[in-house]
Formats: sequence, C-alpha cells, structure tokens
Amino acid sequence: MINIAVAQSGGPTCAINASLLGVFREALREPSIDAIFGSINGIEGIIENHLVDLKSMLLSDDDMELLRQTPSTVLGSCRYKLPDRHEDDSTYVKIAETLRQRNIGAFFYIGGNDSQDTVDKLSAYFTEVGLDVKTIGIPKTIDNDLCVTDHTPGFGSAAKYVATTMHEITRDSIVYSIPSVTIVEIMGRHAGWLTASSAVLHSMGETAPHLVYVPEADFTIDGFISDVRQEMSKHKAVIVAVSEGIPVPEGVQSGLVDQFGHKYLSGIGKYLENTVRREIGCKVRSIELNVMQRCSSHLCSRTDIDEAERVAEAAVRCALSGETGKCMVFRRVADKPYTVVIETADASQVANKEKFLPASFINPAGNNITNAALDYFLPLMQGELSLIMEHGIPKHFAIHESVLK
Amino acid sequence: MINIAVAQSGGPTCAINASLLGVFREALREPSIDAIFGSINGIEGIIENHLVDLKSMLLSDDDMELLRQTPSTVLGSCRYKLPDRHEDDSTYVKIAETLRQRNIGAFFYIGGNDSQDTVDKLSAYFTEVGLDVKTIGIPKTIDNDLCVTDHTPGFGSAAKYVATTMHEITRDSIVYSIPSVTIVEIMGRHAGWLTASSAVLHSMGETAPHLVYVPEADFTIDGFISDVRQEMSKHKAVIVAVSEGIPVPEGVQSGLVDQFGHKYLSGIGKYLENTVRREIGCKVRSIELNVMQRCSSHLCSRTDIDEAERVAEAAVRCALSGETGKCMVFRRVADKPYTVVIETADASQVANKEKFLPASFINPAGNNITNAALDYFLPLMQGELSLIMEHGIPKHFAIHESVLK
Repeated sequence: MINIAVAQSGGPTCAINASLLGVFREALREPSIDAIFGSINGIEGIIENHLVDLKSMLLSDDDMELLRQTPSTVLGSCRYKLPDRHEDDSTYVKIAETLRQRNIGAFFYIGGNDSQDTVDKLSAYFTEVGLDVKTIGIPKTIDNDLCVTDHTPGFGSAAKYVATTMHEITRDSIVYSIPSVTIVEIMGRHAGWLTASSAVLHSMGETAPHLVYVPEADFTIDGFISDVRQEMSKHKAVIVAVSEGIPVPEGVQSGLVDQFGHKYLSGIGKYLENTVRREIGCKVRSIELNVMQRCSSHLCSRTDIDEAERVAEAAVRCALSGETGKCMVFRRVADKPYTVVIETADASQVANKEKFLPASFINPAGNNITNAALDYFLPLMQGELSLIMEHGIPKHFAIHESVLK
Repeated sequence: MINIAVAQSGGPTCAINASLLGVFREALREPSIDAIFGSINGIEGIIENHLVDLKSMLLSDDDMELLRQTPSTVLGSCRYKLPDRHEDDSTYVKIAETLRQRNIGAFFYIGGNDSQDTVDKLSAYFTEVGLDVKTIGIPKTIDNDLCVTDHTPGFGSAAKYVATTMHEITRDSIVYSIPSVTIVEIMGRHAGWLTASSAVLHSMGETAPHLVYVPEADFTIDGFISDVRQEMSKHKAVIVAVSEGIPVPEGVQSGLVDQFGHKYLSGIGKYLENTVRREIGCKVRSIELNVMQRCSSHLCSRTDIDEAERVAEAAVRCALSGETGKCMVFRRVADKPYTVVIETADASQVANKEKFLPASFINPAGNNITNAALDYFLPLMQGELSLIMEHGIPKHFAIHESVLK
C-alpha cells in the first residue's frame, strides 16, 4: 500500500479541478493506494509539509460533482520554480522528507510547462537518491501552448467562453447607427491559441471577428490602423480580437503616469483603443476578458472537463505501472469524428517550452485566422455540463480559506 | 384592422428581444392586428420611415426561440430624445406621417426612462392632433432604476451574470499564497442596483464581496483604503464590488495623459487599483465587467426573460383596450413565494426619473449590502433557459447588418 499526493500549479482554469477529481477517483478505485493527499499551493505544500487528506474533504458524490464544476484550483496554486539541485538541493531534501514521512509513493502535478519542469527535476532527483516516488505531470493551461500534446485541458473551456462572449459582444456592438470599433483583449503572452479560437464564429456565418492579431504574426500600428479603416468601409461595427502579447514596437506600458507621477499600467486593448480614437476618431471601446476567460466555469466545455478527468485517471494508472518523469499528453487521431488517445511523453520534452500557432492557421496578411484552424478548435469546445445551482448561481466546492493560508 | 410598430431603445440587455417577441406573439394572436412593423434604430426608424415587416423575418418557431435567447436589440437602438413639440414639432410631423402612411394604430417602445419620455410626449402630441395611435412603453434596463415598477426586465439576467462571475472571480483570486485585492467594476452611473446584487453570494455562505460601494453611499479614498486594510486583516483575498458611478472627489478621468499628451480614459476600477497599489502596495487587480454584464445571454435568468415576454404581451392587450401614454410596470405582491402582477402607470411617472437603492439595503458603514436586500434580488435571478447551440456556441437571431445601416 502506498499513499499518493496531488498538487495544482500555475494560472487557474476551469478544468484543473476536474483533473484533481480524476486523480482522486482513480486512486479510490485502486486497492494499492491508501491515503490521497492534496498539497496546498502546489509544490510549496510538499516543501512545507502542508497537506490535506482529500478523502476527509470529498465525502460524497455531491462533493465530487461540485468539485468538477468549480473553477480555479481548490488546493491553491503557486508559481514556484525549483532551483538546479546541483547548485542547491535544500528544497529537494525538504520535499523528500515530506514524501518519506507521509509514505507517498506517487506524486501528480497538474500544471503548465513550469510544472513539467518540476516533474522532470524531481523524478531525476528521486532516481538519483533512490527514493521510489513516481512523478507524473498532468497538463493544464488555457494558453494551449504545451509541446507534444495536441491540446491542453482548460483550453477548450476558455475557448468556448471567449467565442461565446465574442458572439454576444458582436450583437452588442452593432445596435447604434454610428460606426464603431470594438477591441477585445484576450490572454496569451506569447502564443495566440486562445485569441485565434474566437474565429470559430466564422463557422456560424458571422463576419466577426473582422481582425485577429496574435503574437505569432508581425504587427505594426500603421498596419493596424490601415486594417481597421478597410474593415470600417465594409462593416458598421468592426470587431477586433487581439492577444495581450502582440509585439508593440514602442511599448504599451510606457509613457503613462497618473497625477501622482506613478506608472499607470494597462493592457494592449486600452492602448489600441486610444490609438484608434486618436488616428480615426470614431466611437471605440476596448474590452478585456480578464480572468473571466479562465474561470467562467458556468460555460465550460464538457469535452474539456471530461478529458481533464480522463487524462488524470490515466496518470494514476501510468504511475502504478511504474513510469515516472512523464507528462500525460493527447494525440489527435481525427478531427471528424473527433478522436484522441492519451499517451505519455518525457516531462523534459514539455518542460520550459512553448508551442505556437502553426503558420497555416494565420492568413497571409497576418490579421485573421484561416478556416483550416477551425477544424482544430471546434471539437474542443463541444458540450456543456449540467450545473448544480444554488439560489440561481452555479455552486462551488471550496476549502475554507483558513486552510489555504 | 390596424398595423402596429415596435421599437427598441437605449443600452442593450439580454431581455429586450424577449419583449420584442412578446409584442410579436401577442399581436399574432390578435385578429384585429394585421402587419407588425419593427422600427430600425428605435424612434429613428419611425422618423425616417425605416421599418421592417417582422412577419417576413420571424418565420418559424425556431426563429422565435432564437430571438428569445439573443442578447442586445435585434432591431438596433438609439439614444434619441424628442425635442419639446412646442418649440419644434418637425420631428413629430415626420413621425405622424410614417404612422399614417403605414396605417399604424399602436406603437410600442421598449426602453428605459428616456424612452418613456418619448412615449409620454408622443401620446400627448397624438391626442392633440387627433391621431389615433395608442402609445405604450415597455420597461427595460439592466440598471433597474425605473420608477414605479418593482424592477425592470434585463436587470435579473445582468444580476445573475454579475453574481455568478463574482463567485468565479472569488475562486480565481484566492489561489496564491500572497495577499491580494481584486476590484470588480460594475455598471451603474447613478444607481447601485446591479453592484448591490453581487451581494447575493452572501446567501451562499461566501464572505465575498467583502466590500460593496454604490453611488447612493458616501465614498472617500481614505475610507476606502481603511476599509481595504481592515478586510485584509481578515481575508487573504479581498474582493471589492464597485459601481462605475461612485462619487470620487478628485475626478477619476483627470490627470492621465498618454505619450502623445492625449487624455487617457479609464474607469473607477483601474483608478482604485492604482490607488491600492500606491497606498498599500499589495498585489491588486481590477476587472471591468464591461458590456458582458448586459449581453451575456448564455447565462440569462429565465424569470427575467419570461417576465420580459409577459410584460410585452400585456402591453399589446393594454393598447387594444384603448389605453395610451402608459408604461407597463411590475408590482411585487410577495417575495416568498415570489409573486408579481403586471399593471400600468402613466409614462410621465416613469420618464426622466431614476430610482435609487433604499437606505435599508445599505449597511450603516456604507460599504456593503444588508441581508434585507437579498430577498429582493434573489427571485429575479432564478432559472435558466435551455439554449439552442450551434458548434458548441449559443446561436443568435440576427438581421443582416446591411438592414441596420
């Protein structure tokens, strides 16, 4: 009999608790697993021996159903990068102490490419010191920028929210008789997957988004203003999707100070809004989808949530079969009908790397998304959960905030 | 046999198309009504004789179901205030020409207090010139600030979106181990109804929102910073709800210029974010719910949508019974079980006035909402629509954009 531990890391998504549920449920089914520990605040909980007993928290099927529909990371999160153990192994020693003390034989880390770096480093260390703790990474990120895997849990739900909201914003923007420009800023510092996914509206006969700017394409302010003018000649209400991370030459965050002389932070959307107002002078609005795009679980993709749970269940089986230092990945077999298989990759292949939109997804002008991309995006956004409501509001599962401190 | 016309005005909501549907369906059932015209861009369509034949557009039950779940105003909107007819009656003359030419015997105007002003002025004019066109107002606004009526169609859906999103933001905000402040800016220039509705989360056992600031209460920056510090001593992640229209003494929009020397517009949320960063120095984020709070029909309140349709049906019956210059209103009979009746008020009682949060809804410190308010808010947010989806995205009914030009 072994105990296991699971932790959640990086930015919240709608699917990361479904992966926690997948680990928990599969572990419950495994007679060789005894206690199931949740580590508070990612790997920090293992370092500080701050673990909770998940069996005493998730007491009923109702608890589990609630956990599945709860956004963000119920165990808290962290942005912690392990140091090189050859330079400083003190953190590794602490981790090993916790794992030994708790008789933990497998550790599951749900996270992005930083977390896969942790999986890679820990598994190498455990092998070196002869500690038998299987270490498996479970992918998640709304950014969809992990290598090897076809896509990442959390992305499909974020994409469904972004496309649905863009659709609604399109309805909202067209009502007045004067021309207007609406700029929607979407997460993605280096990769434009989520911004590009808004183009699925084209499959519904919508002309919006009329312009889509992603970090993978060149961007100039002159080109942007020229693009907007051209779309305004065709459409009364022009809708622009833009990744937060598009490369703006002069620097968006510079040059703005408040009345106290302090730097005034704001995003690319606000910057482009001000640019359109100055250069074109029409009605213009910018909208930042902000954290809603990663936490709006009331509109998650059932495909995404189901896959997040399945890939986590597979991680438990993978550890029990003796593998370690692996990251679970999806391989897409077909778009129609959508078919994926779950496989493993070395965590080192996924760690610290980013996957970018293929050139075939971006139009030659670099200001929109091709139809070829839609077959990739659409299957990930299908289906809805049947939500448990309380007082008309989707109910959540939460640990008391004092436990998270 | 008469023809009728219907128009939509003011800011979009999730329920204004349901009211259009209510007028349409009730008119279909009335043998004394022939053509049903939709006026493009509110009263502007009547002035310019720009009408569409709704029977040729809404051809099937499917079309009608789609219309019901479509946000915003499918006929376009306007922000047009009629001049005083004693000073300039040329617009009135144009309106009368259109109505006579189209043989229109009843006009329905779905909108806020500006639209009720139009209803009041037109009915007085028609009486004066002996034109038999019954003119009835149908209330709508997410702001919930119309007088006489218990609440307004559009508000319940916006409130459901705001509370649900605030709930999700609460989950998102608590994940990291460092203290943080999250400020959520909510629409409401003069009245705090929508901001206050986020406090329904307290009925679910949530401590968030920890602070709620509405225009009806006094606000000072010093008091705000003191409130935030106090909440930070109790909670790791402090969540603040703030109305866009809270009175900030020094003026939010002043003092900010971009690198070109142009005024840089932003809202109260961003302003308070910068203030917290400067005064407290902790992690802080502001989130503007922007147009999503008025157009996120994927999460509308079934109670709200049903009432929007019913009140519009009643408007048609009201006109046929010979009334004019009226605005339809709700009178609440009971909170539990929630019971409302539909009545009429003189449009002049609703026009150009605003209804504010009662003092009993605001706590003595002026920084949160009382439990007494929750019984008012909760019934308006109950139930969901079963949405028609296409490619995983809620489908909309839309008129071709060229018609709206």
